[in-house]
Amino acid sequence: MTQGRFITIEGGEGAGKTTLIGLLAQRCEAQGREVVTTREPGGIPIAEAIRAVILDKANTAMDARTEALLYAAARRQHLAEKVMPAIARGAVVICDRFVDSSLAYQGHARGLGFDEVWEINRFATEGCMPDLTLYLDIAPEAGLARIHADADREVNRLDLEGLAFHRRVREGFRQAAERFPERIVTLDASASPDRIADAAWAQVEARLSH
Amino acid sequence: MTQGRFITIEGGEGAGKTTLIGLLAQRCEAQGREVVTTREPGGIPIAEAIRAVILDKANTAMDARTEALLYAAARRQHLAEKVMPAIARGAVVICDRFVDSSLAYQGHARGLGFDEVWEINRFATEGCMPDLTLYLDIAPEAGLARIHADADREVNRLDLEGLAFHRRVREGFRQAAERFPERIVTLDASASPDRIADAAWAQVEARLSH
Repeated sequence: MTQGRFITIEGGEGAGKTTLIGLLAQRCEAQGREVVTTREPGGIPIAEAIRAVILDKANTAMDARTEALLYAAARRQHLAEKVMPAIARGAVVICDRFVDSSLAYQGHARGLGFDEVWEINRFATEGCMPDLTLYLDIAPEAGLARIHADADREVNRLDLEGLAFHRRVREGFRQAAERFPERIVTLDASASPDRIADAAWAQVEARLSH
Repeated sequence: MTQGRFITIEGGEGAGKTTLIGLLAQRCEAQGREVVTTREPGGIPIAEAIRAVILDKANTAMDARTEALLYAAARRQHLAEKVMPAIARGAVVICDRFVDSSLAYQGHARGLGFDEVWEINRFATEGCMPDLTLYLDIAPEAGLARIHADADREVNRLDLEGLAFHRRVREGFRQAAERFPERIVTLDASASPDRIADAAWAQVEARLSH
């Protein structure tokens, strides 16, 4: 039986995650692999219900730690119901954002603490960590400029944070990459989509073959 | 200004927590203290919304770790919105169940792991731990017999677990008491309510005065 793989794509706003996921999925499928592309909460009813609590505009009193625990809870359920079964049947799962986004956004940029947020996510993942994480590194100015140039893309709450916040997010991702060098590969996201895809595919292919 | 205090009451089903809380609240009030008696989710809308996700009968696919993270999230919000402000203004907060119940029920009895459940609760409490925890220790057979003798009390999901489960819960509470000897005081809950209240009050009074 083919062994499953778990790949996550990380990066700030406008880094090009969606484009890269599409290109990687095509190449994996061309090798005859089953590919599952997903993002939390991934259509899992329990995870959607948790997300609804997080995003409910009435919940203005939500504490930052409550929010971090709820994200970890939704992550766990998505992992248990969708990601783990897909990996178990031999699929390549490519997930848009995972633990490292919580480390960068909540742990570092929001100031909850990198190690603290790592602990609750370690509980949530129970050791089911990606075989490979591709971190698309880009200067926040360039990433945000891409977003604002794309008229079709809906601007979300995080896009509206100031530049200082997005710089902290980048620092957070870089800390994660230093912490987990065997898992996280940093790619220069200012390159062309084809060049990024080639560099990314070289990493993915190496993990698929052994 | 009077300094606030945080007291939690723990124990298995039928241990007499509710009775004891009422008696302790009366004695604290007789000393002129503001008393807040509470239990999670404590009427906090965000915590109630989280609890609704946990208890929704449609959510049969809920993973045990998801559930533990949701309990921790609801705990955090109840703490941040209700318990911490009350302590800050000098009240005595008496809470029916807290972290130790998660350690006993989910960590030990359900097998998620004592240390693992402690980690996520450490994140949730951010060091805001009780000044005193009174653990009402009783043999499960005796506790369950009390519940079934009380026709007014609604039987809940946990009451219906088997005796083996309730024995594991007791083991879990005892482990917690060993782990945190400076915080947790074990009381013999097979004694009469007055005797338990006297022993409990001696502990509370010692913490109120210094």
